[in-house]
Amino acid sequence: MSIQLEHLNRNGLLEMDSRKRANLINSLTGFKSIGLIGTKNKVGNDNLAIFNSFVHLGANPALLGFISRPEAHLRHTVTNIIETKYYTVNHIHEGIYKQAHQTSARYAAEVSEFEACGLSAEIKDGFYAPFVLESRIQIALELKEIIDIKINNTSIVIGEILGIYYPNEDLCEDGYLDIEKAGSLAGSGLDGYHKTTSLERLSYAKPKQ
Amino acid sequence: MSIQLEHLNRNGLLEMDSRKRANLINSLTGFKSIGLIGTKNKVGNDNLAIFNSFVHLGANPALLGFISRPEAHLRHTVTNIIETKYYTVNHIHEGIYKQAHQTSARYAAEVSEFEACGLSAEIKDGFYAPFVLESRIQIALELKEIIDIKINNTSIVIGEILGIYYPNEDLCEDGYLDIEKAGSLAGSGLDGYHKTTSLERLSYAKPKQ
Repeated sequence: MSIQLEHLNRNGLLEMDSRKRANLINSLTGFKSIGLIGTKNKVGNDNLAIFNSFVHLGANPALLGFISRPEAHLRHTVTNIIETKYYTVNHIHEGIYKQAHQTSARYAAEVSEFEACGLSAEIKDGFYAPFVLESRIQIALELKEIIDIKINNTSIVIGEILGIYYPNEDLCEDGYLDIEKAGSLAGSGLDGYHKTTSLERLSYAKPKQ
Repeated sequence: MSIQLEHLNRNGLLEMDSRKRANLINSLTGFKSIGLIGTKNKVGNDNLAIFNSFVHLGANPALLGFISRPEAHLRHTVTNIIETKYYTVNHIHEGIYKQAHQTSARYAAEVSEFEACGLSAEIKDGFYAPFVLESRIQIALELKEIIDIKINNTSIVIGEILGIYYPNEDLCEDGYLDIEKAGSLAGSGLDGYHKTTSLERLSYAKPKQ
């Protein structure tokens, strides 16, 4: 049953070419939570950027986190969030993943990635930050806290969920939102995009089952 | 093209039944990084637990984070990590996801979830913590830092990757490890398990593409 595995140790990792190592280490988390973060700065310029490290922090209050890296063009998103407090997270489906990936290019701060990448900014219900019109699951958030991870100059940005938009037919009786039915994709490494096929939902586990 | 979406606001969320809200909010991150964390305490008792919030923090040094929640039976893992510094993260494939899910039951601290759930602890290369023999991607880690997220009593546990075990045929020329080919699964909500189908890997994005 068990197959022979290759072993790479710490020295082997350190000796790898840095781009190769980045690809490898980025693969190790398993499949990644990907989404587009929409923001608008104080003077009204939209920004849109793909992130691949969303984590659930809690349901009451409803908190969503994501990891922010130090590279300057990735900081436009966080700068806008700090400036205005509000942002959106938008799921990515098969119809928009190429546009979503393109938002990772190093556009200047004043460029709207919505326009540059062929996605539509949607303003609704009085919320300051733009949603991605083409997205089928959209989340409105308010910044709660940014915690610095000093060991490598990253940070975790924590927001409270203020509102959710979703296809009604994808919300199950028990509150589970069927993100596969809604077409949401998973990520891998730095550049992989995947559709999913549900195996099953398992019931709450108890000892001696 | 765009479909009509349902809107649930903050009040609607607060008024939901708590289990329903937990299911919904857990669905919003998108697909989740799932894996089994193997630890061994000072007196040699093994522990194994499924987690669904792994995040990539950096490739140099190679750092992997995960979110730890305050519930007591989930803390066995973190207690062991603090006590011994070493732990493993093991990917989950279709052949072991039911056993992996079963590790989430509230076993007593002295119970080995390996035995209780039908998985095999593997000790190798002098590493203190046990790997999951049946897993095809196994990672050895050393604790670097635990950062408390005071807003809701969770924490992010950060480890450095000391070693990787993987099927040789799944490592690409450029360092990307093909976790889909290795059979790794993605999670959704609290209890959903999914296989994946790759759409494609996209090239590094540049403006004006």
